[in-house]
Amino acid sequence: MAVNMDSIKKLRAMTGAGMMDVKKTLEETGGDLEKAAELLRERGIAKAAKKADREVSEGFVGSYLHHNGKIGVIVELNCETDFVARNDAFRDLARNIAIHIAMANPQAVSRDQVDENIVEAERVSLRKEALDEGKPEHIVDKMVEGRLGKFFSEICLMEQPYVKDDKKTIEQLLKESIASIGENIQVGAFHRIAIGE
Amino acid sequence: MAVNMDSIKKLRAMTGAGMMDVKKTLEETGGDLEKAAELLRERGIAKAAKKADREVSEGFVGSYLHHNGKIGVIVELNCETDFVARNDAFRDLARNIAIHIAMANPQAVSRDQVDENIVEAERVSLRKEALDEGKPEHIVDKMVEGRLGKFFSEICLMEQPYVKDDKKTIEQLLKESIASIGENIQVGAFHRIAIGE
Repeated sequence: MAVNMDSIKKLRAMTGAGMMDVKKTLEETGGDLEKAAELLRERGIAKAAKKADREVSEGFVGSYLHHNGKIGVIVELNCETDFVARNDAFRDLARNIAIHIAMANPQAVSRDQVDENIVEAERVSLRKEALDEGKPEHIVDKMVEGRLGKFFSEICLMEQPYVKDDKKTIEQLLKESIASIGENIQVGAFHRIAIGE
Repeated sequence: MAVNMDSIKKLRAMTGAGMMDVKKTLEETGGDLEKAAELLRERGIAKAAKKADREVSEGFVGSYLHHNGKIGVIVELNCETDFVARNDAFRDLARNIAIHIAMANPQAVSRDQVDENIVEAERVSLRKEALDEGKPEHIVDKMVEGRLGKFFSEICLMEQPYVKDDKKTIEQLLKESIASIGENIQVGAFHRIAIGE
């Protein structure tokens, strides 16, 4: 496999990484696009993790209205600079997260934002369920915590599988975008209205 | 002034009332469009008040994204039937209420939905303000309740002057729409996100 302008272009489109990084990584993998993309992703995500501490005071409101007019979503996607807030890739990401929220109906951005009363009600209900299944008392607590983890992963936006590509979670989608766009990106808040729900 | 097809058409466009009502009212006012519209409005709003008890389980999500992408709004506008939910006038109303919310930034639909903690904090602050102005204790309570009324009218969607026509409140706008569309209409919920607020 050759390292030429064509493969460099393809890899840049796949990863959003800079020209020199792409060229270097392609040389390392002897021109293998998939391996190079994987390497860039690993390194990019390492970069993203460092960026995740930076303050995000700019942003864009992603919105989505379902074609029948019965579901509407707004989502605050934050970034560091107004320059990125006006970037098409960033705005597409905001739009895609709004579409995801319309379909997947998350209840909170992340675990720490789930209402404590909802967690407690779920814990009580899971506990009762485990006891009803005849599980011995000493393993009920462990089961409840395990199932509570599953419950969180179903209702927290960051842990949900992305509806347009369920091989990654929304958290992974954000990390990839942080790597390719080059700024810290965070979901600030979201709201969803569905008629009749 | 004559009662002819032209004046009937004009009055229907002004009020949204039915053909026979329009014709009869024009005859009563000797063809005076303004007086007839006023009469229809009075009667229409009388009808609307009766309709306001009917159940609203259908609806449409009005949405608005400000051109700079920094303010987004969704609002649930409920009606009685799916037929009205698909009606253009109804959808325009939902859209206009979303635009109003983007601009006027209400905190609740109506007084009974304002958070009790916010009301209490405002009451304490108004009380302190009145005492600082040197008002005697025995009239402070009355002043506080008066100013609290003003506070409510500023933050409650239904009491705000409509941004596109500040001679009417949103409540009056809804009543007119109930009269012209012919079904009970209610604002169910709304959400507003503004970047950096």
